[in-house]
Formats: sequence, structure tokens, C-alpha cells
Amino acid sequence: MSDVERLIQLLAKLPGLGPRSARRAALHLIKRKDSLLTPLARALADAAANVRICSVCGNVDAADPCALCRDERRDPATICVIEDVADLWAIEHTGAYKGRYHVLGGTLSALDGRGPDELGLARLIARVTEQRITEVILATSATVEGQTTAHYIAERLAPSGAAITRLAHGVPLGGEINYLDDGTLAAALKARRPAS
Amino acid sequence: MSDVERLIQLLAKLPGLGPRSARRAALHLIKRKDSLLTPLARALADAAANVRICSVCGNVDAADPCALCRDERRDPATICVIEDVADLWAIEHTGAYKGRYHVLGGTLSALDGRGPDELGLARLIARVTEQRITEVILATSATVEGQTTAHYIAERLAPSGAAITRLAHGVPLGGEINYLDDGTLAAALKARRPAS
Repeated sequence: MSDVERLIQLLAKLPGLGPRSARRAALHLIKRKDSLLTPLARALADAAANVRICSVCGNVDAADPCALCRDERRDPATICVIEDVADLWAIEHTGAYKGRYHVLGGTLSALDGRGPDELGLARLIARVTEQRITEVILATSATVEGQTTAHYIAERLAPSGAAITRLAHGVPLGGEINYLDDGTLAAALKARRPAS
Repeated sequence: MSDVERLIQLLAKLPGLGPRSARRAALHLIKRKDSLLTPLARALADAAANVRICSVCGNVDAADPCALCRDERRDPATICVIEDVADLWAIEHTGAYKGRYHVLGGTLSALDGRGPDELGLARLIARVTEQRITEVILATSATVEGQTTAHYIAERLAPSGAAITRLAHGVPLGGEINYLDDGTLAAALKARRPAS
């Protein structure tokens, strides 16, 4: 197999790229050898050498435990449970949360064969119990799978004594009432608050 | 900037990947360090070191001139003009063509500021004239830009004496008449042949 064929084959394994777009990406890279191909090769090699998965929370970082787990200014008694590292990045980007995280790596799914063991829920429960966590925020997606997973975790964590909370549902900022789906609008009505 | 951020930033420059899908691709890679991240880093480094663009036809290959240009069994008097290397791969895949190629690298486009100079058409014309080419097959896309480009090249090559041909238009294999667009159906009717 030629170098180009091998590159296409590997690029096609990335999520969002099929065989045809992998060919296009490979040509794009080859035409931009100095500005993109070489820097990307180096960035991947650096990531392979340096990036690891935090054994405490599941975050990706250059160190284990990760920078967020080692940050003394973050509240060690609050854990935010998320499906994926991308969700952690989204929450960090808001700057509105100063506790610790726990990355599940997915949702419970009978179809995909992911049960409590595959998600490592025992590790989360041990962490909440042993570290005297006072609040667990369940920030899984507002999908059926995400909510089922949150419900299951809430039940399993009930004996720990920690407060179990979830994100508020409601009208997104900038959202037009006219275009909202029924479920969101109903949730926003139900959770209405005094207009102070 | 961390290794992960840098990787995401570079991945986002690939065609077909935006900032969000680049994050997803980066996480996908980090989670598959041995099976994907490391091999891809090596494949990119290999491509950067070995792959070059053929100075004769514009193909990408480990050698310059490329394997197709050096292949003595291929007809050196026929050139197939294409927009992109991906088109070359598609034609090679059919096994139905045994001549040489000329990769334009795009189409003429006033909007994108690509004129005859940007496409290096002088190089194509010199090649056709000097190498005594007997046939030039214009295999640009059946789009307005592709056909405009083909028309322009045909005019410029008229004095060379080479036969200038283009791909046949018609019903694609497996195509249902019912679902064909008017243009294709009209072209297929106009170019009808004896049902031998």
C-alpha cells in the first residue's frame, strides 16, 4: 500500500470522515505540506507521547491526575457527572463551574451493550462515598439515554447522602418561543420562577 | 496552548471537519492511542517525507515523475485532463483508461480569481504541442465551471492538431429514467445509438 493510500485509510477512521472525504482531506494535506501536513503529524506525535486520561475523573490532560483534579482552588466536594470530555470543555468554557468532574465516557445503552460496569459506575460511587462529596450534579444530555443514565446514577447514589442535582431545563438564551419544541416549552412553564 | 488544543486547531483545518467535529475527532484519536493516533501520526510523517506532486502531470506519488508518467505501457500520446487528483483515482479505478493524465487543480473561476495562469494552462498547451499528443480527453466535471473550463481548453488546443474529445453524457448505469434530471435525459436522447 502506498503512503497516500495508508493515510486515506487512517483518516477514514475519524468520526465525520467517510472514504470520500478522507481522500479529499488527504489531498488537502498533501497540497499543504508545510502549513498543515507536517504540523499535524507533529501534533499527533506530541499528543501520543504526552496526553493521558486522568485516572480520577477521566479528563484528558498532559498529567495524571489532570490539572482540574489537582487545582486546589476548585471545590473538591462537588462532582459534575458528564458523558464525554467534550461536555467538560463546554462547561469549563462557561466559567460558571468551579468543582470537580467525572467523565462517564457514554450513556447506559442496552442496544450497544453498555451497562453500569462498562461505564465504571462503581468507581463513581466509591469516589462519592469515600471523598465525602456533598453534591453530585448530573449533567448528562437531555436525551432518553442521557436521562435514563442520570436516573440510574441518582438511585445508586441516594444512600451516599450527597445532594443529587441536575441541570435546569428551560428556554435557551436567544431562543424564540415560537420555535421551541413542546418538551422544552412545557419544562420551562413548569419550572417558572418569580420575575424579580 | 496544550497539546490537545493544538491538535484540535489543526484538525479543524481539514475539509469536512468544523471546530466541533475536530474536538470529537481529537477525543476519538486520544482514546485510540495505539490503534489510530500513533499510526496516523506516522502515516502523516511518512507522507510529508515521501509524497510529492508530479511535475509532469500533477499527480501525487512517491516519485517525480509519478509512476503513471513513467509507466512505459501507458499510451504517451493520449492525455486525460482532470480537475483533481481524486478524479484521476476514480478513472484509474475503472481500469478503462491507459493513457497519461494532466491534473488542472481546479476550474476556471472568475469568482475565485482562477484564470488560465492560475491553472497553469500554458504548461498543458506546451505539453500537448511538444510531445506530439494525438488525443486530449477533457474529463472535467459536468458542472457549469467544469464545462466552461473544458470549452476554453478545447479552443486553446485547437491549433495543436490533437483530437479533442470529452466524456459521453447519458444515463448512468443503474439509473432509473424516472428519476433522471431533464438535462441528462435530453443529452442521452440526443446522443442515442443503434441498439446493436
